[in-house]
Amino acid sequence: MNYPENLSDIDIILDQTDVILEKVIEAWTELQTKQPLIQCITNSVASNYAANVLLACGASPAMIDNPFEAQSFASIAAALSINVGTPTTEQMQAMLISAQTVSEKNTPWVLDPVGYGVFLKWRSEMVDQLLLLKPTIIRGNASEISTLAGNQAQAKGVDSTLSSHEVYHQALTLLEHTECIAISGESDFILSNAINGVIQINGGSYLQPKVTATGCALGALIAAYSAVSTPVIAAVAAHVHFAIAGKLAFAKSQSVGSFNVAFLDYLYEINDSTIAEYADIQIIQ
Amino acid sequence: MNYPENLSDIDIILDQTDVILEKVIEAWTELQTKQPLIQCITNSVASNYAANVLLACGASPAMIDNPFEAQSFASIAAALSINVGTPTTEQMQAMLISAQTVSEKNTPWVLDPVGYGVFLKWRSEMVDQLLLLKPTIIRGNASEISTLAGNQAQAKGVDSTLSSHEVYHQALTLLEHTECIAISGESDFILSNAINGVIQINGGSYLQPKVTATGCALGALIAAYSAVSTPVIAAVAAHVHFAIAGKLAFAKSQSVGSFNVAFLDYLYEINDSTIAEYADIQIIQ
Amino acid sequence: MNYPENLSDIDIILDQTDVILEKVIEAWTELQTKQPLIQCITNSVASNYAANVLLACGASPAMIDNPFEAQSFASIAAALSINVGTPTTEQMQAMLISAQTVSEKNTPWVLDPVGYGVFLKWRSEMVDQLLLLKPTIIRGNASEISTLAGNQAQAKGVDSTLSSHEVYHQALTLLEHTECIAISGESDFILSNAINGVIQINGGSYLQPKVTATGCALGALIAAYSAVSTPVIAAVAAHVHFAIAGKLAFAKSQSVGSFNVAFLDYLYEINDSTIAEYADIQIIQ
Repeated sequence: MNYPENLSDIDIILDQTDVILEKVIEAWTELQTKQPLIQCITNSVASNYAANVLLACGASPAMIDNPFEAQSFASIAAALSINVGTPTTEQMQAMLISAQTVSEKNTPWVLDPVGYGVFLKWRSEMVDQLLLLKPTIIRGNASEISTLAGNQAQAKGVDSTLSSHEVYHQALTLLEHTECIAISGESDFILSNAINGVIQINGGSYLQPKVTATGCALGALIAAYSAVSTPVIAAVAAHVHFAIAGKLAFAKSQSVGSFNVAFLDYLYEINDSTIAEYADIQIIQ
Repeated sequence: MNYPENLSDIDIILDQTDVILEKVIEAWTELQTKQPLIQCITNSVASNYAANVLLACGASPAMIDNPFEAQSFASIAAALSINVGTPTTEQMQAMLISAQTVSEKNTPWVLDPVGYGVFLKWRSEMVDQLLLLKPTIIRGNASEISTLAGNQAQAKGVDSTLSSHEVYHQALTLLEHTECIAISGESDFILSNAINGVIQINGGSYLQPKVTATGCALGALIAAYSAVSTPVIAAVAAHVHFAIAGKLAFAKSQSVGSFNVAFLDYLYEINDSTIAEYADIQIIQ
Repeated sequence: MNYPENLSDIDIILDQTDVILEKVIEAWTELQTKQPLIQCITNSVASNYAANVLLACGASPAMIDNPFEAQSFASIAAALSINVGTPTTEQMQAMLISAQTVSEKNTPWVLDPVGYGVFLKWRSEMVDQLLLLKPTIIRGNASEISTLAGNQAQAKGVDSTLSSHEVYHQALTLLEHTECIAISGESDFILSNAINGVIQINGGSYLQPKVTATGCALGALIAAYSAVSTPVIAAVAAHVHFAIAGKLAFAKSQSVGSFNVAFLDYLYEINDSTIAEYADIQIIQ
């Protein structure tokens, strides 16, 4: 990985929440300053929403998802986000080409294995292929991560039927394929060999899963942060960004339409002091 | 059809609005309880919106629209919604495979023949093929339903130029292909051999057609209700749900952006008492 | 071109802002009256948003983007909007067929060369082909228009890194391919041989580029206006419509989610007196 100088996860031991918080704030500041170009290959439900989330958070999204431009564009992107939500044949080709390109260039990339499981084999086989290219970060809901880790988890379509808390122990086996695993849910869990323990992030709102594509957009945001930070800090920063915006949005609005508007507002309005005030990060053993 | 027990349209004569209203409230309650998995093959304009509408109303949407996963996923879906708005070749294949799968399993499914007519032949031929598989419910605007029933109706692209009231007599011939026909418009009309007469639903707002994909999302919602109710009650419940949310949203906001936000809010906030208070259902002969 | 009678750009010399403003108001009125059918072949990020913008502004959008219906539908559309944001092979075919069809019928059409440049060659080659069919209006951001005019402009993915003011002199060479060029940015610039000078439009908000697909939707709106007006007036009217709605929306809301809701509201609420009051049009030499 091409880590920004002095920011490698390996150089420090991430065992203190105040150190992590400081690095999250640094990552947020870097995102605003650099506005990195993020290539997103995502699903038809998420494309508009993920682009709006990235713009609100400070990144520069480009939804380049055809195989004919995948190599040239992936070679200039600062990070790549791959989401297999509603794949087409051409998108599948673009995923593979783009992932190969960024892997060769040591550009960070995120894999979101939406719907991984026996009833959606085509995408699951593509996810298996992409795993061989060692995504920098894998993110998903509890059912997807559990199934990916080899368990017979049940999902309801693309929605989780497991809690993130039940799953994170199983997920450790996935660390042979990736540097960092992020599991979203009522609480979010970040796993990596660079952490002494597991990072837990609280916040958000029960309304977030009632707005479609929030998880997909979160994957894209992790990619954006990974362009300006280390894998673990990128994952933590994106989840903290979402958790704070979700919490503040819910305080303002308790129904789905207006919650979503407020959520986008707060994603944009968050700054270093809001992060310092509202971030709820714990390290559990 | 696999009707929920004691709920077959055939067992009762739907000739009393209070009986229908009671069953609509039951259907709404079931939708919240079961949160059925609904496969949607829909257009690029509607995919995000339809998913958000289903989540707001209590269902669990999955936009699985590729031919390689169509059979395995349709076999576990509680209902299927097919909308031919902006079809691709792969989606067309997925539609046919999914429709065949659910037909064999007696899983309910909804067909929305967007843009049916002479200037859009490719999709119209697919709709003709799908009709042979006998969709549980056909829904569309007045121009689409009239053309589908063999009349030379004029449409403006995908928008209707006819009123729903003019058309419902013509639509009766379609009952050889389906158990239930739903025509949306200023008033909505539900037709079925299980009804003594035609059910008319009032409500909504003239702003609804000014928000794109509301009709497409309504088709998906009919599919969601059909997973927990009979075809006629499913169609009535979805239209009532939309009509009430549209009416309340318009009372709150009279411009398109904020109307749409309020509409999603009310889709989510509606409950048994709101339905009892605001549903405007008539039976006409 | 089939100009509406007495409205050809060539008959009048567009050198007075009050004449232009009067014609913009006429165009807006015509748009509300005729609600022309606009075929849009656009990207996955923009399809819902562009449809909602067209509906809010008075047009009737239809996102027909498959090659099998491209010819028959383009032959009845009042105008065509082509945007190469996230092309698929089938969309590319549809673009070419539709553009050929409208060219033969003298139906106005708009080309938006999203991301034109060396890192996105596939679409750039398609844009080069489409240029041979002489689009009525070309619209883009400063980086795209500069690159299209043969300069080595730098873009960040699909976002501009140049200001519109720097670029409009370079863009004049493009007038051999088109009747009108529209460059969006902090100020917008409209170029045509029918103008004595260049038309500059001010307004809007710095939040507009923070909402994805606003540029794409603007291209579709130019197409809508071109169905009821001349190319230059169509381009000016669409930019004025956006500039006023953006300015009023920003006065109401300063964060991205609620800004976007207010923006759609004002696109819908604008009328002849708002246009007369807020339009900021200049002619520069």
